[in-house]
Amino acid sequence: MTWTPQYAERTAGMTRSEVRELLKLLERPEIISFGGGVPEPALFPVKETQAAYDDILGDPKLVGRALQYGVSEGWTPLREQIAATMTAKGVRCDVENILITSGSQQAIDFTARAFVDPGSEMLVQRPTFLGALKAFSAYRPKYVVLPDPKSNEPITASRGADRPRMAYVMADFQNPTGESLTMAERHDVIRLCADLDTPIVEDDPYGELYFEAEPMPTLAAVDLDGRHMDESRTLYCGTFSKTLAPGLRVGWLAAPRGVIERFVMLKQAADIQVSTINQIVVSKLLDSLPANRMDHVRATYRVRRDAMLAALDKHLGGMDISFTRPDGGLFVWLQLPAHANAPALLEKAVAENVAFVPGPAFHHDGGGANTMRLSYSLADAAQIDVGVQRLAKVFRENL
Amino acid sequence: MTWTPQYAERTAGMTRSEVRELLKLLERPEIISFGGGVPEPALFPVKETQAAYDDILGDPKLVGRALQYGVSEGWTPLREQIAATMTAKGVRCDVENILITSGSQQAIDFTARAFVDPGSEMLVQRPTFLGALKAFSAYRPKYVVLPDPKSNEPITASRGADRPRMAYVMADFQNPTGESLTMAERHDVIRLCADLDTPIVEDDPYGELYFEAEPMPTLAAVDLDGRHMDESRTLYCGTFSKTLAPGLRVGWLAAPRGVIERFVMLKQAADIQVSTINQIVVSKLLDSLPANRMDHVRATYRVRRDAMLAALDKHLGGMDISFTRPDGGLFVWLQLPAHANAPALLEKAVAENVAFVPGPAFHHDGGGANTMRLSYSLADAAQIDVGVQRLAKVFRENL
Repeated sequence: MTWTPQYAERTAGMTRSEVRELLKLLERPEIISFGGGVPEPALFPVKETQAAYDDILGDPKLVGRALQYGVSEGWTPLREQIAATMTAKGVRCDVENILITSGSQQAIDFTARAFVDPGSEMLVQRPTFLGALKAFSAYRPKYVVLPDPKSNEPITASRGADRPRMAYVMADFQNPTGESLTMAERHDVIRLCADLDTPIVEDDPYGELYFEAEPMPTLAAVDLDGRHMDESRTLYCGTFSKTLAPGLRVGWLAAPRGVIERFVMLKQAADIQVSTINQIVVSKLLDSLPANRMDHVRATYRVRRDAMLAALDKHLGGMDISFTRPDGGLFVWLQLPAHANAPALLEKAVAENVAFVPGPAFHHDGGGANTMRLSYSLADAAQIDVGVQRLAKVFRENL
Repeated sequence: MTWTPQYAERTAGMTRSEVRELLKLLERPEIISFGGGVPEPALFPVKETQAAYDDILGDPKLVGRALQYGVSEGWTPLREQIAATMTAKGVRCDVENILITSGSQQAIDFTARAFVDPGSEMLVQRPTFLGALKAFSAYRPKYVVLPDPKSNEPITASRGADRPRMAYVMADFQNPTGESLTMAERHDVIRLCADLDTPIVEDDPYGELYFEAEPMPTLAAVDLDGRHMDESRTLYCGTFSKTLAPGLRVGWLAAPRGVIERFVMLKQAADIQVSTINQIVVSKLLDSLPANRMDHVRATYRVRRDAMLAALDKHLGGMDISFTRPDGGLFVWLQLPAHANAPALLEKAVAENVAFVPGPAFHHDGGGANTMRLSYSLADAAQIDVGVQRLAKVFRENL
């Protein structure tokens, strides 16, 4: 049959994720990929994960539950552990404030599914996480840009009944720029959204990957200022993909309990629940992993960040290119001359066996043609130098 | 903040799944639950599952991929195995025809997300699977009932541009009735949908749980009649939840490759991918489990089906109650006298320590108050007899 006329309007404008497609390039060993924002597999806690699966599958009382359906809210001990961790970081939560999701991507998708009607306004950073834009676009919002905190631009959002349905914000080591909001900027975002009476959705996959000092409090913590999550305007999307392993697909949403009750219904309708056994594995890992393990993870990425910045300083010297100097996370963001076309440059780069993600994927309006994201997560220091050298050649020959 | 006015229109009418809530009752040991349609945990292939996780986590070449992000389409070897199995059952598929989903629930959700605009018509059986109704209702279709094949009622669906966007059908051991379409009825559904030019979504979680002869060909196989899935009007939703274990959350959609390409975008936006390690575990189980294992699974449920029918014959004798006599699957469907109110009876039943699912949950229009679903999957023959005896007492005292 002819399928094209069958599709619902919400699928219009859907495109494949450039980053997901780039993942396929990772299979080619000659490519140095600064593309996917995927974690270094050598950092996965393999031994402890194996022990956790073994414990569960060898425990006659537990295994029947681990392989069975469970409640859509998620595995209760894991929810308790997450609530305790969030409380310790200044976001007072109880177990009823936590819903386990299939990575934070699903929590992000659910927020738009819950709050955004076609045509309603929604606040986003520019640039912002492309996976979030893919999810949001299915709900057909009208995007309104959160003003760059460094500018003095006024916000153009509507007021009253037409006010934005939500603001999607990454405050720490943002994807794609690697930059974080200052404390003053966090207060600005919260004040703005309180003024508009708009919920904030904080997406925080990289907060634990800080390289310098202790990280700043999350937007949720700043918003709450000691109060309980039940009184929060900020919903918090967390994940174990960057701290443990993405292949487990375990993330969470923290929100007021009444909001969680609604989202549990979304979860039931979408896919019932996250894999029970994987939830129990994460719960066991949170207990069994040494407390200082994340220091090693952070140190590994810090070395690569340093290598990336050093290589950019060395090889891009004299070119009209600026880049961010992130204090954590996985990404550096490049600003090329205004006439540059990053998507066209990617083709040249792949011919030179180096890859990145062109900036337009991170712009809700398709702008940012002269920007690109480099991830330093998967290459070692030597490869990073070679990769940036290749990139510099592409720039010299094509800019 | 005040959350109620924040919610999108699509969340209106969302209700918690009665069956999911009933799962919570399973924790109370004194309850004999005929409620959840969950598989018997004693049938989970625990030893082989443990071996599969161990193999993966002990293989230095595989583990880095198993815990990492993977492509949204799913683990290629698993997709190949599914394509081969479907081909062997008369649905000619290649790897490009298979998308791995988080259980068949996610495939069901995606079909409506892809095809249904608010207000557009959609064909459903009455009664039908409540989890599908929960998913569909978020897309706000206008439900049109597929006529009972035993009746001669004409279909009331629109034609032309307003024709139904999809027909959702369970052909084998349907949830909730346990009944299957005859071959003639399969041809009727396909002819009707061809006449309307409407895609068919076949949901087949129970097809492998046949008790009597070899099962009939699936709707997809009848539709294709030897042609390739690329030419199919019927999309097929499959799952390993009833044959292996639901806690792994691995299912699939089989569809023409152009349709799969669209659904891959839905998957990217929804939650990126199914747990990589769980997909590899399922792939290994399909290779390692003995070929006759499903005979034991079928025999176990057949004994319980027999016990359920015998207990119903024995304890409901003389009452004005009819019930189905399924040849497979997990469910028996009861039709009580017209004045009966199954939701009210459930409260009485729980007081007697027995549970079921009242029929209205399976009716898109909230009808069916005098119907109920009994699952025999979790209780042994002796418990089934006791449970049905308790039910009979509730009926005697309240009908």
